[in-house]
Amino acid sequence: MQLTVAKDMESLQEALAGLAKAGKRIALVPTMGALHAGHVSLVKLAKEIVDEAVVTIFVNPKQFGPTEDYGRYPKSPEEDIKKLREAGAALVYVPSADDIYPPGFSTSISVGELGKILEGKSRPGHFDGVATVLTKLFLSILPHMAIFGEKDYQQLCVVQRLAVDLDLPIEIIGAPTMREVDGLAMSSRNVYLSVEERKIAPKLHEVLESVGKVIASRKVSVKSALDQGIAALGKGGFKVDYLELRQAETLAELRDFTPPARLLAAAWLGATRLIDNIVVE
Amino acid sequence: MQLTVAKDMESLQEALAGLAKAGKRIALVPTMGALHAGHVSLVKLAKEIVDEAVVTIFVNPKQFGPTEDYGRYPKSPEEDIKKLREAGAALVYVPSADDIYPPGFSTSISVGELGKILEGKSRPGHFDGVATVLTKLFLSILPHMAIFGEKDYQQLCVVQRLAVDLDLPIEIIGAPTMREVDGLAMSSRNVYLSVEERKIAPKLHEVLESVGKVIASRKVSVKSALDQGIAALGKGGFKVDYLELRQAETLAELRDFTPPARLLAAAWLGATRLIDNIVVE
Repeated sequence: MQLTVAKDMESLQEALAGLAKAGKRIALVPTMGALHAGHVSLVKLAKEIVDEAVVTIFVNPKQFGPTEDYGRYPKSPEEDIKKLREAGAALVYVPSADDIYPPGFSTSISVGELGKILEGKSRPGHFDGVATVLTKLFLSILPHMAIFGEKDYQQLCVVQRLAVDLDLPIEIIGAPTMREVDGLAMSSRNVYLSVEERKIAPKLHEVLESVGKVIASRKVSVKSALDQGIAALGKGGFKVDYLELRQAETLAELRDFTPPARLLAAAWLGATRLIDNIVVE
Repeated sequence: MQLTVAKDMESLQEALAGLAKAGKRIALVPTMGALHAGHVSLVKLAKEIVDEAVVTIFVNPKQFGPTEDYGRYPKSPEEDIKKLREAGAALVYVPSADDIYPPGFSTSISVGELGKILEGKSRPGHFDGVATVLTKLFLSILPHMAIFGEKDYQQLCVVQRLAVDLDLPIEIIGAPTMREVDGLAMSSRNVYLSVEERKIAPKLHEVLESVGKVIASRKVSVKSALDQGIAALGKGGFKVDYLELRQAETLAELRDFTPPARLLAAAWLGATRLIDNIVVE
């Protein structure tokens, strides 16, 4: 199926009507563009579990704080379309900010406490912006499924909470984080890293893996394992925002290791904020 | 068509699937029960504009403040079912509070400033509760249309804002306020009125009508017309919460009469809070 590029709601609805008429089950892959192999893996997964992948590319101003990188967020529109065509996506919706938030727009959605911890604590309002734009995209497209990378693990939890709480008729699916060969989680923001920072960056994943093993071994307390990890990251050149063990669904704090558990970290490397997470089992 | 009473999500979905299979277009009439002729008129309107009416009966705890009448809100479940059967409704969904808000539920929706003025000022959080429960009911039922009485005029504006902002695939329809022969707007809360208060109550609508005529005549300023109305209500035994002229869609304040305009009032009569509104043209 040839890739349709829809730049407004009308052409989106026309293309969706075509897919529906052809009896295609669709999965949505929402993105902010600057696509990398992680996004491509989500598109391919979509095509495996349903018939066709529908992708959105929208750098959502509402999920960036006033001091964040909204203005300089990487953009590669032509390469994005090329990658989506190669990956076999059926439709990509590339709305403008005015399409999504026309004058008078005033609604916001909050998932409560789950959106206020971890990333939400460091980035106030971030998950309200995420929940609001995703609800709109879900309702404009009404896909059978929506697929999110586990790289943004808290976002996946927020979206699952949102879908359950609002009775969204959409199945939410998490897909494994794609990594560079040295372990660095793929992210559009990795382009911000200097050559020197890029060499250090994989340390974040290394520390997660080693702390995860220590926690799983139950040989020391969770707190002690986390403290060691924070120290190792500091020594490696990171400014740690958080490194925490959390219940895998509610993201409630885990003082003792009780599966299912997730180890999540955010840390600055110079002017770039990196996040990563792993399962601990 | 015989009335189906669905008491949980499973039987709701089964009944909805039956309606969809039969090719029926449905309109939703959300209610809090204690049905009166106003609700019945909405059910009948639903059947005129689409094929079948689907009604929900749910006294939504999230739209009541801590000092409000959630606990004593009138209930008449058997009479409600009888009225819906007579009105020709196809399906009524009567969920429990746990069905709508299961443990862990934490999402809330706000329409912003529109939900914080007038009723929202007197009843903080009220419209967040309304927007949240209606989004859930809309997404559980996915009707073609949803019908709301103009008696709760600000609620109608909030729902229209919500539907536009979230791209809800549902048309929102307002229907005229039903009134008793003496002009009192029908309301489930009218049963709270004592015999003496019930005699005074129609004065609210009378004052709206007379103030509306004065404003439309443009003979005095809007402020002066409203002040006269507030004085008349006070003299009549009401404690006025607000009496305001607003733009009919945004509910922005109107210092001068510029159609389309709505005149809205809330006033206490003893322990009962009455609201009403009229178009000014």
